[in-house]
Amino acid sequence: MATQLKDALLADMRAIGLAARAAAGALAGAPHAAKDAALRAAARSLREGTKAILDANAGDMGDAGAAGVSPALLDRAKLDARRVEAMASGLEAVADLGDPVGAEIARWTRPNGLDIARVRVPLGVVGVIYESRPNVTADAGALCLKAGNAVILRPGSESFHSAHAILRCLRAGLEAAGLPEDAVQAVPTTDRAAVGMLLAMDDCVDVIVPRGGRSLIERVRAESRIPVFAHLDGNCHVYLHAGADPSMARSIVLNAKLRRVGICGAAESLLIDEAVLETVGAGAVKGLLDAGCAVRGDAAVRALDPRVEAADEADWGTEYLDGIISAKAVSGLDEAIAHVDRYGSHHTDAIVTADDAAAARFLAGVDSAIVVHNASTQFADGGEFGMGAEIGISTGRLHARGPVGVEQLTTYKYLVRGRGQTRPA
Amino acid sequence: MATQLKDALLADMRAIGLAARAAAGALAGAPHAAKDAALRAAARSLREGTKAILDANAGDMGDAGAAGVSPALLDRAKLDARRVEAMASGLEAVADLGDPVGAEIARWTRPNGLDIARVRVPLGVVGVIYESRPNVTADAGALCLKAGNAVILRPGSESFHSAHAILRCLRAGLEAAGLPEDAVQAVPTTDRAAVGMLLAMDDCVDVIVPRGGRSLIERVRAESRIPVFAHLDGNCHVYLHAGADPSMARSIVLNAKLRRVGICGAAESLLIDEAVLETVGAGAVKGLLDAGCAVRGDAAVRALDPRVEAADEADWGTEYLDGIISAKAVSGLDEAIAHVDRYGSHHTDAIVTADDAAAARFLAGVDSAIVVHNASTQFADGGEFGMGAEIGISTGRLHARGPVGVEQLTTYKYLVRGRGQTRPA
Repeated sequence: MATQLKDALLADMRAIGLAARAAAGALAGAPHAAKDAALRAAARSLREGTKAILDANAGDMGDAGAAGVSPALLDRAKLDARRVEAMASGLEAVADLGDPVGAEIARWTRPNGLDIARVRVPLGVVGVIYESRPNVTADAGALCLKAGNAVILRPGSESFHSAHAILRCLRAGLEAAGLPEDAVQAVPTTDRAAVGMLLAMDDCVDVIVPRGGRSLIERVRAESRIPVFAHLDGNCHVYLHAGADPSMARSIVLNAKLRRVGICGAAESLLIDEAVLETVGAGAVKGLLDAGCAVRGDAAVRALDPRVEAADEADWGTEYLDGIISAKAVSGLDEAIAHVDRYGSHHTDAIVTADDAAAARFLAGVDSAIVVHNASTQFADGGEFGMGAEIGISTGRLHARGPVGVEQLTTYKYLVRGRGQTRPA
Repeated sequence: MATQLKDALLADMRAIGLAARAAAGALAGAPHAAKDAALRAAARSLREGTKAILDANAGDMGDAGAAGVSPALLDRAKLDARRVEAMASGLEAVADLGDPVGAEIARWTRPNGLDIARVRVPLGVVGVIYESRPNVTADAGALCLKAGNAVILRPGSESFHSAHAILRCLRAGLEAAGLPEDAVQAVPTTDRAAVGMLLAMDDCVDVIVPRGGRSLIERVRAESRIPVFAHLDGNCHVYLHAGADPSMARSIVLNAKLRRVGICGAAESLLIDEAVLETVGAGAVKGLLDAGCAVRGDAAVRALDPRVEAADEADWGTEYLDGIISAKAVSGLDEAIAHVDRYGSHHTDAIVTADDAAAARFLAGVDSAIVVHNASTQFADGGEFGMGAEIGISTGRLHARGPVGVEQLTTYKYLVRGRGQTRPA
C-alpha cells in the first residue's frame, strides 16, 4: 500500500475512532426509550430499504463469485427478502429486551454510613471484526447500541456493500431517534491494513470482538493491546455415562452432532462409558452412522460397527464443523472429565445420565463456559439462553464467558454516597 | 544472560506454570473449610516464623541499602513484628470472608424446561508482579487462595528474601490443610528475564496483576497476551459545586488530599465552582495551604491567596502522589464533568454539594470506576468498600473495575440442567 494512501486511511480511521468515542459519551446517558426508538426506526428502515440492500448484496455476490469465493461462503453472505425481514425483526427483539444500563447490580451501606452502589454502565466503544454474514452488521450494531456502546464494524470483503447498506439503515434509525449516527460506523475499506489500524486504537476502542476463524483471533491477540472477547474453537463433548437412558442418549447425541454441523456448539467428540459401550454406546454410534455421520473411534468403538474409522491422536482435539465425530470409550467419570479437560476447548460439554450424583460431579469438575446435563450441546446460544441475542460465545475466562449478550457488553461503576465522611488515619 | 542459564530458568518457569495449573485444578474443587483452614494455619505459621521473616527482611534491607535503594522504598520494604502480626491477622480476615466459589449468581428456567444457572468459579492461575512491599505476598496469596486460584508471585528485588520467607508460611498453611502447596509459588530469582517468561505463559496463567508504576504496566501490556487487571494512575478530582457546604468541603478536600498523599485514591486536582470560589473555594484552598500542601492554580485560584503557585497544562493531568494539588475554577457542573473526563484517569472522582440533582448528574456523567458524593476520595479501597481486602484497584473497564477483591478474582460458568431436551431445527 502506498504511503500516501496509508496515511489517508489512517486519518480516516482516527476520525472514526474519535467520532465513536464522542458518540459513546452521548449514548451512555441516552434514555432507554431513545435507544429502543432508534432500533425500531432502523427495523422500519431495513424493511423499506430491502431492495437497496438486495441490490448491494447482488453486487457483493458478483464480486465474490468473480474472486472465486467458495459456494459455502457465498451462501452465508447471500441475502434475500426473508433474511432482511429476519434482521428487521431481530432489531425489534433487541428493542424488546430490558435496558441493562443503569441497573443496580448491588447496593450496601457501610458502618460509617457510606452508601455504595454497583451500577451497570456501557463498556464504551466496541470493535467488531467479522467475516461473511451480513446479518452480523444488524445484530452486532443492535446489541452494542442497546448496551449504550458505540460500535465500529469491520465486515468481511464478501459482504462489504451489503454491510454498508444495512449500516445506512441503522444510522437512519439513530438519526430518527435523535441519537448520534456515529454510534454505528464501519471501516470504509476492505483493505486489511484498516484492521491493523483498528487494533492499534487502544485509546478509542475498549473491546474487540473478532468473529471468525482461529487465524483472525490469533492476529487480534498478537497485534492488539485491546481486550478481546474471543470465540475460539468449540470442541464440544457428549459423555454417555453408565447411567444414561439409551433413547435419550441417542437423541441428544444425534442432535448435538447433526442438527447443524457448522456451529460452535456442535458436538465433535463422543465419550462412552465402558459399562454401556455395547448398549447405549452402540445405539448412539449406529444412529450417527445411519444418519450419514462419519465416526472416528478408538479400538473399542471400532469394534461396535465396521463403518467406524480409526481415530488418531489429532482427532481428539479437532473441531470438525462437519458430519464427522470422534468417539472413545472411557473407564468412567474421572477419565471422561480428564479427557474433556485435556482435549476440549472449554466451550460446551454435556453428560447424559440418570445418576444425579454423577451429573453433579461432571458439572462441577468440567471447567467449560457451559456444562450441560441431559440436553443437547446445541443449546449453547444466547437466544436459547433467553438473552435475546448474542454477539458471540466467549471461550475466554474474563468478563464475558459463554454467550455475549447485552449484559456482557456492559461494565459497572461504583456510586458512593456520603454525608461528609472522611477517612480516619 | 547466558543461554544455558536462560534455558535453565525457562525450564524452572515452565515447571512453576504447570504446577500452578495442576494446583488450580485441585483448588477449584476444594471445600471452603479447607481453604480457610489453610489461611488460618498460614497465619499461625507467620506468627511462629516472625523471627525468620525479620531475619530475611534484615538481609533484604542490607542488600537494598548497599544497592542504594531510596529511603522511601526501604521504608515500604521494611518489616517489624507489628507488620508481621498485621499480615497474620490479614490472613484471618480473608478466612472470615464468605467463599465466593460456587455461589449461584443467577438461575432461570427456559420455556422448554431447561434450567440455567450462572455459578461463580475460580479464574484459574493469577500472576502477581509487584514491587517492594513484602505484605503483598501475604495479601495477594490469601485473596487468590480464597477465590480458589493458584498464584505465581513475582516480588520486587528489595523484598525477595522476605517474600520467600512469607511464602514458606503460606505453603505450610496449605500443607497443613491438605491442599497443594503449589497453589502459592514465587519466581525463584530476581532476574527480570523471569518476568518476560511469566508474561509469555499464556497457557498457564489466566490473568496478570501488575502492582507497580506505569512502566511495569506498559511492559506487561506490550509483552503479554494474558489479560491484565491494570492499576494505572489515580488522578482523582474533588469538585466543589455551588451547593457545597463550606465546612464539609474543607474537611473532604483536606482528607482527600492529605490523609495519605501516596495512595491512588488521593485527590490530585480540585475543581471549584466560580459561584463559590471566594467562599467555599477560598476556605478549602486556605486549609490546604495552612496544612503545608502546595497548591498550583489557574489565574482565578491564584487570586485567592498569594501562596498559590501557577499551574500549567501538564498539572491537570499529573498524579503527584505528594503534598501538591492542582486547582481550577470551573463555570459549573458541565465544565467540571468535561474536565474530569479529559484529564482524569477514571479512577475516583468526587463532588461536594447539598444539591441532590447536581450530585445525580455528576454521578451519572463522570465515567470513573468510583464516583463519590459528599465523601473523601480516600475511601477508594477494597477494605473500606467492605470487600475485606483487595489486590489492587483496577482502572480497566473489563471484568474487574475498582477494588479487586475475592469476588473479582473469580469468573463464572453456566450449568444447564435438562431432561433430554434437543434443539429444534
